[in-house]
Amino acid sequence: MTTTNPTPLTLLGLGAMGTALAHTWLTAGHPLTIWNRSPHRAQALTTHGATAAPTPADAIAANQLIVVCLLDDASVEETLTGTDLTGKDIVNLTTSTPDQARTRATWAEQHGARYLDGGIMAVPPMIGNPDTGAYVLYSGNRPLYDTHWRTLAVPASTTYLGENPGHAALYDVALLSGMYGMIAGITHAYALLRADHIPTQDFAPLLTSWLTAMTFTAPKTAHQLDTGDYTKDVVSNLAMQAGADTLLRTAQDQGVSTELLAPFVDLMKRRVADGHGDEEFAGLVDLLRTT
Amino acid sequence: MTTTNPTPLTLLGLGAMGTALAHTWLTAGHPLTIWNRSPHRAQALTTHGATAAPTPADAIAANQLIVVCLLDDASVEETLTGTDLTGKDIVNLTTSTPDQARTRATWAEQHGARYLDGGIMAVPPMIGNPDTGAYVLYSGNRPLYDTHWRTLAVPASTTYLGENPGHAALYDVALLSGMYGMIAGITHAYALLRADHIPTQDFAPLLTSWLTAMTFTAPKTAHQLDTGDYTKDVVSNLAMQAGADTLLRTAQDQGVSTELLAPFVDLMKRRVADGHGDEEFAGLVDLLRTT
Repeated sequence: MTTTNPTPLTLLGLGAMGTALAHTWLTAGHPLTIWNRSPHRAQALTTHGATAAPTPADAIAANQLIVVCLLDDASVEETLTGTDLTGKDIVNLTTSTPDQARTRATWAEQHGARYLDGGIMAVPPMIGNPDTGAYVLYSGNRPLYDTHWRTLAVPASTTYLGENPGHAALYDVALLSGMYGMIAGITHAYALLRADHIPTQDFAPLLTSWLTAMTFTAPKTAHQLDTGDYTKDVVSNLAMQAGADTLLRTAQDQGVSTELLAPFVDLMKRRVADGHGDEEFAGLVDLLRTT
Repeated sequence: MTTTNPTPLTLLGLGAMGTALAHTWLTAGHPLTIWNRSPHRAQALTTHGATAAPTPADAIAANQLIVVCLLDDASVEETLTGTDLTGKDIVNLTTSTPDQARTRATWAEQHGARYLDGGIMAVPPMIGNPDTGAYVLYSGNRPLYDTHWRTLAVPASTTYLGENPGHAALYDVALLSGMYGMIAGITHAYALLRADHIPTQDFAPLLTSWLTAMTFTAPKTAHQLDTGDYTKDVVSNLAMQAGADTLLRTAQDQGVSTELLAPFVDLMKRRVADGHGDEEFAGLVDLLRTT
């Protein structure tokens, strides 16, 4: 068995996330070429051993592996246009929609590059710290992933989701959606308590335990959806969700807007009105489809 | 040390929850008097040793400790009115709003009873099974709780929240609110994936881990709220939540209604527009207050 030298790579974009990524590769001994629109961020990293390139074209010419972590998809197009991408392996960690990722993959292939899209499930302070559970979702070119996954695993663990270049972004957005829903629920709950001047820190441990316990809803609903049997293992069906009206009335009594949760209560009522009061939550997923 | 005989008690209401409660007390050897509007449910329990009373008044006359588990607060008033509550200890587990619980407590005291309100954080199959983590939140008369908590702990563990008889219902509704928000997020996430024909069971383990990890938002936001320092320990502030627009655009591309999450995105944008882009989520709680 031979050990290989750390793979050299190029990183475009040194925002908070890009800077965190850069430090992990430098610490692990990877030769790193960097470029950023505002040069001062690149300058700071050169003292840690990075090589600052004057233009994106120069940065891309320096290595085969090109990691992109810019503001948005428009920035990616603007930064890469006019550079020579022939034979390059592009790993795009820029936040984008699934459609943008798929379009960018085709665009990259047309310019002679292999393309892998990534969605970072972490905030910058979690990067390079495996204990935080940070990871990056990848989808797209499989040979590229197989070639470079060890390098990609330096900042955070990697999960490969298949060849469809849009799926990393899709999973990323879906996880973010789940999180925003949960935080909306927390926001509403805290507003209720503060109306009674209850310290939310007294309540937070109960809420954390409760939400963690209730995550069982995710695999259960998934099983119902995938099998098509929406009434399997139902314990508390939609018609029995009497708590929903208590929830709305309590909010009104406490002087709390129902704007965050009323749409979900409405959706449950629509499903019951459609004759599906014997289900739990799976059928609500179908009601959200607009096409 | 002496052992005492199990306390005799009365249970009014034998829906799915009442029936589950009754079985645990009978199994633990508590003499149990029961009443239910539909007599057949009471009849079934007499074969397990319960005594069925013909009227609520008879059931209440039989014991000092009266547990009430009816459909709603209106049913409680209707069932108890005209009975002799003098010297009784009423434990009301009926789903109600905080205001209803406070009003019911005053009403019970005016009729010569002590009153404790409870919110059951469990579905019926969890009752009597400590491994499920089921518990009941209690608030109201402290001497009543101190006298009877061992009996009350037979079906599920107990948490006492203080003398305010509305707080058990308030915590109950707040926990339910958090759960509905989380399930709204799961519903939206699954709709996104199904638009790409991805089995939701492939995604559910990632989502469950992610939501569990993100529950750290609850204690962090609580600390910000209670200290009034909404920018303390901010990692990813509202102005940086670029993912929110990606989320809305992805839903549109995938043919998924944004009705469940758009109100939360709107709330974040309002807070940024108000000049608080340097916060995370604490300030959103204040925006929900209508009074």
